[in-house]
Amino acid sequence: MEFKGQHILTAEQFDKKGLLALFEKVREMEEVLVGQRAVSDGGKSKGFEKTLDGKIMATLFYEPSTRTRFSFETAFLRLGGKVISGADMMNTSSAKKKETLYDTGKTLSQLVDVIAMRHPEPGSVDELASGCSIPVINAGDGPHQHPTQGLLDIYTIWKNFEGKIDGLKIGMVGDMKHSRVAHSLCEFLKYWNVEFVFVSPEELKMPEVVVEELKGEDLKVLETTDLEGTIGEMDVILTTRIQEERFSSADEAEKHRGMYVFDSEMMEKAKADAILMNPLPRVDEITTDVDYDPRAKYFDQVGNGLAVRMALLAMVV
Amino acid sequence: MEFKGQHILTAEQFDKKGLLALFEKVREMEEVLVGQRAVSDGGKSKGFEKTLDGKIMATLFYEPSTRTRFSFETAFLRLGGKVISGADMMNTSSAKKKETLYDTGKTLSQLVDVIAMRHPEPGSVDELASGCSIPVINAGDGPHQHPTQGLLDIYTIWKNFEGKIDGLKIGMVGDMKHSRVAHSLCEFLKYWNVEFVFVSPEELKMPEVVVEELKGEDLKVLETTDLEGTIGEMDVILTTRIQEERFSSADEAEKHRGMYVFDSEMMEKAKADAILMNPLPRVDEITTDVDYDPRAKYFDQVGNGLAVRMALLAMVV
Amino acid sequence: MEFKGQHILTAEQFDKKGLLALFEKVREMEEVLVGQRAVSDGGKSKGFEKTLDGKIMATLFYEPSTRTRFSFETAFLRLGGKVISGADMMNTSSAKKKETLYDTGKTLSQLVDVIAMRHPEPGSVDELASGCSIPVINAGDGPHQHPTQGLLDIYTIWKNFEGKIDGLKIGMVGDMKHSRVAHSLCEFLKYWNVEFVFVSPEELKMPEVVVEELKGEDLKVLETTDLEGTIGEMDVILTTRIQEERFSSADEAEKHRGMYVFDSEMMEKAKADAILMNPLPRVDEITTDVDYDPRAKYFDQVGNGLAVRMALLAMVV
Repeated sequence: MEFKGQHILTAEQFDKKGLLALFEKVREMEEVLVGQRAVSDGGKSKGFEKTLDGKIMATLFYEPSTRTRFSFETAFLRLGGKVISGADMMNTSSAKKKETLYDTGKTLSQLVDVIAMRHPEPGSVDELASGCSIPVINAGDGPHQHPTQGLLDIYTIWKNFEGKIDGLKIGMVGDMKHSRVAHSLCEFLKYWNVEFVFVSPEELKMPEVVVEELKGEDLKVLETTDLEGTIGEMDVILTTRIQEERFSSADEAEKHRGMYVFDSEMMEKAKADAILMNPLPRVDEITTDVDYDPRAKYFDQVGNGLAVRMALLAMVV
Repeated sequence: MEFKGQHILTAEQFDKKGLLALFEKVREMEEVLVGQRAVSDGGKSKGFEKTLDGKIMATLFYEPSTRTRFSFETAFLRLGGKVISGADMMNTSSAKKKETLYDTGKTLSQLVDVIAMRHPEPGSVDELASGCSIPVINAGDGPHQHPTQGLLDIYTIWKNFEGKIDGLKIGMVGDMKHSRVAHSLCEFLKYWNVEFVFVSPEELKMPEVVVEELKGEDLKVLETTDLEGTIGEMDVILTTRIQEERFSSADEAEKHRGMYVFDSEMMEKAKADAILMNPLPRVDEITTDVDYDPRAKYFDQVGNGLAVRMALLAMVV
Repeated sequence: MEFKGQHILTAEQFDKKGLLALFEKVREMEEVLVGQRAVSDGGKSKGFEKTLDGKIMATLFYEPSTRTRFSFETAFLRLGGKVISGADMMNTSSAKKKETLYDTGKTLSQLVDVIAMRHPEPGSVDELASGCSIPVINAGDGPHQHPTQGLLDIYTIWKNFEGKIDGLKIGMVGDMKHSRVAHSLCEFLKYWNVEFVFVSPEELKMPEVVVEELKGEDLKVLETTDLEGTIGEMDVILTTRIQEERFSSADEAEKHRGMYVFDSEMMEKAKADAILMNPLPRVDEITTDVDYDPRAKYFDQVGNGLAVRMALLAMVV
């Protein structure tokens, strides 16, 4: 696949070759980060890159998300670019004056060189991109797509298992029905020969369409409600937050909260070389004592996400 | 007129000589933009300018306007400066603690090198400027002034007609009563020998004071409600949005909406070498099929606005 | 005291040696500012410093404060760093998704090199810092601490009296009970041999614990309600705003407003070489005619604050 000048809108855009090309670039970016973030004694700390000198990114967040916005902005700045920031577009933009996203795209194409956009409505990022002559990166359009999250998750697995994804048993635990994160990761993992274990309450099972797609690729899928009986086999454990906003009521969400909790005791049942992942923010699905467990990778994922976004931006712009 | 160190508060500050000096500088800035925005194969893409290296601009938006804020910030960044951003000053600033704008001006003069400010109250930008020892650019103070919008409009005409403004017939269509954009453009056009056609409903006619000023300069003015009968003579067609916020009720605004709509059919009646302008955001005064018409210049205006603001900032700071 | 890599959370962290080391650095920064802010004729104006090239600061403001945020951001930018900006974290961040500040700290440590944070809750900045492997600067946690404000106040005194603080009579006037600014300044002044005059209404007296600490250092303290009778002796006059948000009702606040007003007439009673300070924003405790009095230093304090924050960031990062 070609990256330069492309919109990055969905996980489906990436084939295996594209992923591997991206991973190589991410490795380069990790070197850049080590250089820049070194404690500056002995003059070892390096300045900003020049790769994106002269380039400007706009972040358009119609649904606030500090973590994702900060990750994109940091990525662009570390490569020598500059950023103009729309943190709260729903309340501060021409959206109020009924401008279409198509027009917003036409307008911004005159000003900046790339856009990272988040919006609560599925398809909204595509609408903006349809008016853009510059690349647009989807930073999440509601329950629909959030490709860079999926990319950082698959990269985290690739990095921790040193490229050997084939043969891994991938556990995903929690609300499989609504988890965009789990769906995206499946989209990427189907290129390797892995087994899946989806652990969820009966009402929050993985959608049939996702399971069927994986089975269509001849991949084994186990669906269960039982975490304790299956955690010991998992190489990767992806835990997910109960997202209140996806349920009809707070009560409904509350019912499922605390169903699968990862604490030190539960982690004793997991493999010694498993990795524990979470998209953050966590609420109560992982207790803080687990933070000290070397298998806990959820904060490392943030760093991986930064390197992934740097790589993607460098390749696209 | 002198630019360096000056506040830019009103359209009236600019005489013809000042406008022409500005236009020459805008041309230079367009070269800079071509260099920076080139697709970076073959190493043709250039880094940021150094003109404003060491300089910081604050944007103070007491009335959110993403388009205008992004345009000012992009302009400053492209010249090598840096920006601190107040996107939503009404809700996040000391305005809540009853600080006067005079004091805000005194304070910010200690920190930054130039300010771009928007505020819903006429005269508010002047109040801030009265406390400032650094240049202040008015980015719109309610219905009062928004000089850089007027400058980009007159520059768009100058550029498209290669400097030959004398003899043009200028059409302005829509709400002439409330349109700050139309009023500002008249302020600049009076320096040339042009004719005006103002098309509006009877209740939304151009204010007497504007018409009288133009006539005082010996310029011909025609006022009419009839678009179809006059569009064929216009060299420049400035269309304006019905701005709900200027009417006493939404119903009142709705009454006038859709009165003058520019679609492909209407554009067939226009001159082959006319230009169609709009300050954006458009709502329904221009249909999207017109976007493909080479006479449509409203998105180009955004790019012209960027170059105009770059020129102005470079001359003032 | 050591600065590099440290959190800056409280005034108590600074000993006299640390203060003096900081002051020397602030002097250097004032040179940098003179270079950058010079009017750029004759090529005297200098570009951004390179000290923090490659470094990124995040500002996290859970309680909006444009003045303090702009001061920190400007300071970091002038040293060659870059900034990502959270101006309105309470409404735009994962705080809504119930993320702990500890987790926010863990997350941001993966992205940026230093954090400046403001929050309405006492202790909140410490909580964030407990998750951070990067330095955190407290930019105010409610009524608790705001060390850089105290530092700029003590620096203002040090600078104006050319380092000779011993022997000065320090007046503080207004709401001594709630004034974080006054409390912090006492924390620093106790290292010198000064006398204090606290002027306040009976109900808003300086807390006993502050007075006792000063007396414990063998410093003289006078408490009084009488400004006119004491102003003539003061070398430093720190005035404070009645902060409505610290009172149980607006009426309660109103009662004390206008009790001690500094106008030209009052300033006639002050020493010829006294200095008049205020943390800003002022409301009505100082009339604008006093702005022209050379003894008025409240706007200079903003510039001093910029230099102090530059020095601190350069030493910590």
